Amino acid sequence: MNPITLLGLAAAFCTTVSFLPQAIKTIRTRDTSGISLSMYGLFTFGTLLWLLFGLFTSNIPVTAANGVTLIFALIILVYKIKYH
Amino acid sequence: MNPITLLGLAAAFCTTVSFLPQAIKTIRTRDTSGISLSMYGLFTFGTLLWLLFGLFTSNIPVTAANGVTLIFALIILVYKIKYH
Repeated sequence: MNPITLLGLAAAFCTTVSFLPQAIKTIRTRDTSGISLSMYGLFTFGTLLWLLFGLFTSNIPVTAANGVTLIFALIILVYKIKYH
Repeated sequence: MNPITLLGLAAAFCTTVSFLPQAIKTIRTRDTSGISLSMYGLFTFGTLLWLLFGLFTSNIPVTAANGVTLIFALIILVYKIKYH
């Protein structure tokens, strides 16, 4: 695998998995006062668009990464709305 | 411009700009207790990798989007470290 493809995969992995610790912290603490509702609203919508983009272009990495990120972002968004 | 390219641009715009309201809220309130340090550490690193990926592949949208996101993510990360 060429180094640049590896760089892209590492970037996708980091930006996708990074939302997991935030989802865990939000579930555990329900401390959402410092979290921006407009960020997670817009980010979740954008991630949904990326998922559709991945599906329409049959791009498996984009589809998989954004499918996972969408789950984490939705969890954080729902907790923010519920425990604002 | 074909609809799928438009979808990709809209997705990139939303996921990039979404970090602006979080950066503003964090600067204004310094309320970072609910924000995950490991998320922003990993996300900032991943965004840096995407920026390098965009530069190496001469992909202007990827470079521009991640350059902007990196600035917002760094602001949030620095505030989280400073006011944890």
